[in-house]
Amino acid sequence: MEDIVIIFKEKPKLKDPILVEGLPGVGNVGKLAAEHLVDQLKAVKFADIYSKYFPPQVLVNDSGTIRLVCNEMYYVKRPEAHNDLIILIGDYQGLTPDGQYELSDKTLKVAKELGVKRIFTLGGYGLGKMIEKPRVLGAATDSELVEEMKKNGVTFSKGEPGSGIVGASGLLLGLGQLYDMRSVCLMGETSGYFVDPKGAQAVLEVLAKILAVKIDFTELESKAEQIDMITSKLRDVEPQHEPKKEDLGYIG
Amino acid sequence: MEDIVIIFKEKPKLKDPILVEGLPGVGNVGKLAAEHLVDQLKAVKFADIYSKYFPPQVLVNDSGTIRLVCNEMYYVKRPEAHNDLIILIGDYQGLTPDGQYELSDKTLKVAKELGVKRIFTLGGYGLGKMIEKPRVLGAATDSELVEEMKKNGVTFSKGEPGSGIVGASGLLLGLGQLYDMRSVCLMGETSGYFVDPKGAQAVLEVLAKILAVKIDFTELESKAEQIDMITSKLRDVEPQHEPKKEDLGYIG
Amino acid sequence: MEDIVIIFKEKPKLKDPILVEGLPGVGNVGKLAAEHLVDQLKAVKFADIYSKYFPPQVLVNDSGTIRLVCNEMYYVKRPEAHNDLIILIGDYQGLTPDGQYELSDKTLKVAKELGVKRIFTLGGYGLGKMIEKPRVLGAATDSELVEEMKKNGVTFSKGEPGSGIVGASGLLLGLGQLYDMRSVCLMGETSGYFVDPKGAQAVLEVLAKILAVKIDFTELESKAEQIDMITSKLRDVEPQHEPKKEDLGYIG
Amino acid sequence: MEDIVIIFKEKPKLKDPILVEGLPGVGNVGKLAAEHLVDQLKAVKFADIYSKYFPPQVLVNDSGTIRLVCNEMYYVKRPEAHNDLIILIGDYQGLTPDGQYELSDKTLKVAKELGVKRIFTLGGYGLGKMIEKPRVLGAATDSELVEEMKKNGVTFSKGEPGSGIVGASGLLLGLGQLYDMRSVCLMGETSGYFVDPKGAQAVLEVLAKILAVKIDFTELESKAEQIDMITSKLRDVEPQHEPKKEDLGYIG
Repeated sequence: MEDIVIIFKEKPKLKDPILVEGLPGVGNVGKLAAEHLVDQLKAVKFADIYSKYFPPQVLVNDSGTIRLVCNEMYYVKRPEAHNDLIILIGDYQGLTPDGQYELSDKTLKVAKELGVKRIFTLGGYGLGKMIEKPRVLGAATDSELVEEMKKNGVTFSKGEPGSGIVGASGLLLGLGQLYDMRSVCLMGETSGYFVDPKGAQAVLEVLAKILAVKIDFTELESKAEQIDMITSKLRDVEPQHEPKKEDLGYIG
Repeated sequence: MEDIVIIFKEKPKLKDPILVEGLPGVGNVGKLAAEHLVDQLKAVKFADIYSKYFPPQVLVNDSGTIRLVCNEMYYVKRPEAHNDLIILIGDYQGLTPDGQYELSDKTLKVAKELGVKRIFTLGGYGLGKMIEKPRVLGAATDSELVEEMKKNGVTFSKGEPGSGIVGASGLLLGLGQLYDMRSVCLMGETSGYFVDPKGAQAVLEVLAKILAVKIDFTELESKAEQIDMITSKLRDVEPQHEPKKEDLGYIG
Repeated sequence: MEDIVIIFKEKPKLKDPILVEGLPGVGNVGKLAAEHLVDQLKAVKFADIYSKYFPPQVLVNDSGTIRLVCNEMYYVKRPEAHNDLIILIGDYQGLTPDGQYELSDKTLKVAKELGVKRIFTLGGYGLGKMIEKPRVLGAATDSELVEEMKKNGVTFSKGEPGSGIVGASGLLLGLGQLYDMRSVCLMGETSGYFVDPKGAQAVLEVLAKILAVKIDFTELESKAEQIDMITSKLRDVEPQHEPKKEDLGYIG
Repeated sequence: MEDIVIIFKEKPKLKDPILVEGLPGVGNVGKLAAEHLVDQLKAVKFADIYSKYFPPQVLVNDSGTIRLVCNEMYYVKRPEAHNDLIILIGDYQGLTPDGQYELSDKTLKVAKELGVKRIFTLGGYGLGKMIEKPRVLGAATDSELVEEMKKNGVTFSKGEPGSGIVGASGLLLGLGQLYDMRSVCLMGETSGYFVDPKGAQAVLEVLAKILAVKIDFTELESKAEQIDMITSKLRDVEPQHEPKKEDLGYIG
């Protein structure tokens, strides 16, 4: 079989589209943010990405039907704006380093074909401790974009993230340069211990401003409240412990 | 060498064949069931599948001769029924995720060529505790099949299996969709601690009904009694312990 | 680069050659035996096998010069006998399962080209306890060979080795069948704790009889005495401990 | 994508160039040495090497811009000398054994094309204990080079390094022989516990003499002092412990 199989439902004609990526990672911040974006903008799925770099696994829906694990591409047409959107979400990132490279490269090839010149990748920045008001850290392919992001409330902090950006959120930027794409990674601070809707909201608030889209955060807020309830209970029960440092540096 | 080498003894002409898969997995439920089916239906082997995705290992027969580890395909001609059968059994599943994908895809290519349009994959559903009367859980590629299975005593339970179906039993369903095949996974409940002929019998009773085949269960029942004897002895000796949860979710 | 690079010093014309393999494995029994055979028969090296399936490593000779880890092929011309010999020795076996398959398959392709129809693979059978007089266990590709080996003092014992034969010593038999080669694996019993010249001698005594070659065992015997001295000292110092079972089943 | 992507800024015309390699490894001795050489000789970058054998990671510069992890090739034109220089440095070595082979082989192909006939690889030799005056050990592709190196103060010590040379520093020598290149590995002794500028300086002092280049060591010396301060503090705090032997044999 081909290493990566992309099944197109349609090949949309898009106006100067911007790619937004949110795959599983630290605190699932990027995934939560991108999925919320898909919901809010009623994005239309146009491609399924299957690959032997994903786990050999099907998921079972509540109805008893299955679907093979995959990544998915959606589009949003925005007649009123300068840019249409493509959103990449999915069940998994590639399991191996070379799988990560192959998947990001294939994604970029499709993006290029659809006219993408700019990418936003969304991820979490693991702090290893609970945080009240998560900042959004940034990294970009050029300093002009860095300045542009600063104006939109993105924090650029020397030495953060010290270990760089690992996974699709990093590779799409790095490999994207070979495709002449200008890109930004937005990382929401998160403890890294739980799925973190608060970090996702922080990231999405910044992105919404940049893309000039309106987003209702009610659902993310209610998810955050549920997590807060669980974690506060856990804090009552469990003794404090220092997290291991290596668990926290990964950014998806 | 080729990644997967299939040696055909013959290329059988089959009437609208149904593929039944049972490879090693949790409690070896699927493997036991499919092997028992081969025995009972006097299925005829027509292909050996060798692969570098299997362990680099030969098995030694009691006579001192060896055979390279492999998967095997059998057929059953059923002049009286609507469908002939193909049964896939084997020593191992692929060792790596990409090996799993390649092997399942190759199996599907052969199945397609032989006219297969429907697949039943057999596996175990690990509960992590001993069970008296194992249910048979199901998952299927479409809701029509789900309904059909329910009528045959298959349980579809929301959130079970929560972690999806891993390995060939899942992939043949998931990848099979790309080959327009409609498929069902039947999972017999099992502790997951032992090879489990009881779970295999449960699965096979359901399958026999669906396929309208007659199966004598004496041998499986006697194997189950042996296992029961061993486990009841172990229970006398060993203290109770909680199984680790990650050991139980896998379904082969 | 090519996955496997074979550098031929010459392509010898050989008379109905028999391949003997001895690569690293349990107790290094096969490697010791085959290397001793090379020495004793003054075998001539004709090929170096390099591969990315080996470790990325060079070895440093006493003189300070290096050589890339490899496998080596030697030949022995025997005008007085029916068969010339090819001997395969080396620093390593393939690191991964698929590397094992690729290397064995490539070896077989070369062997086929040189006219090989029969193979003897040499290995150790790990017992997990010290042994005074190691037996030589066998496995073969057909029952005629089994009978032939029995006459030469090889033990065929039902259920031994229970876990089959892993690595090149197994694969050359298993894959060799696809090349119409008839083969035997000779396994010298060994504790598996130490490099074991005694096991190697046992194997070689049987092989020498079969191939009708004369071998002086002085060197192996003196190596065995050295090991005996070390282990008897260790036995005085260390408390007895049960070996873990998984450490013992591997046969190289 | 291609397994290894090399982006050339220019293809320099070089006079009988010598390749010097220093990638991450034990004590980062080779990397520190080669990077210092690049700085001191004001070497010019002419190629970036990206690969799916590296981690899927981008590094974030202090300015907030990113760059994909890579290896880099520099050249130094030396009108006054017999040989121009090529220097290979980088963020990582290949993650897997086969990646190591592929990367070294590709490097050699480029080197060959640029006219390289001689290579110096730089690495550390881990001792597992602190060392005041590190020696520089050597290994070479032929005995003539061994003698030449001895005259330049390189130590060739029987049985050191006992486990050979692992990684790019070894492979470039070993695979280089298949490209008819004559090569030397210079290994600076190091504890292996810390990044070790002292070991790097030792290596570079020898190399500078051989290549007849002038190098100012002020920066390396000041780095060494910083490390000395840290380690002496640690020695006050931590109890002595025996290092595990397997941590020390690797030479990058």
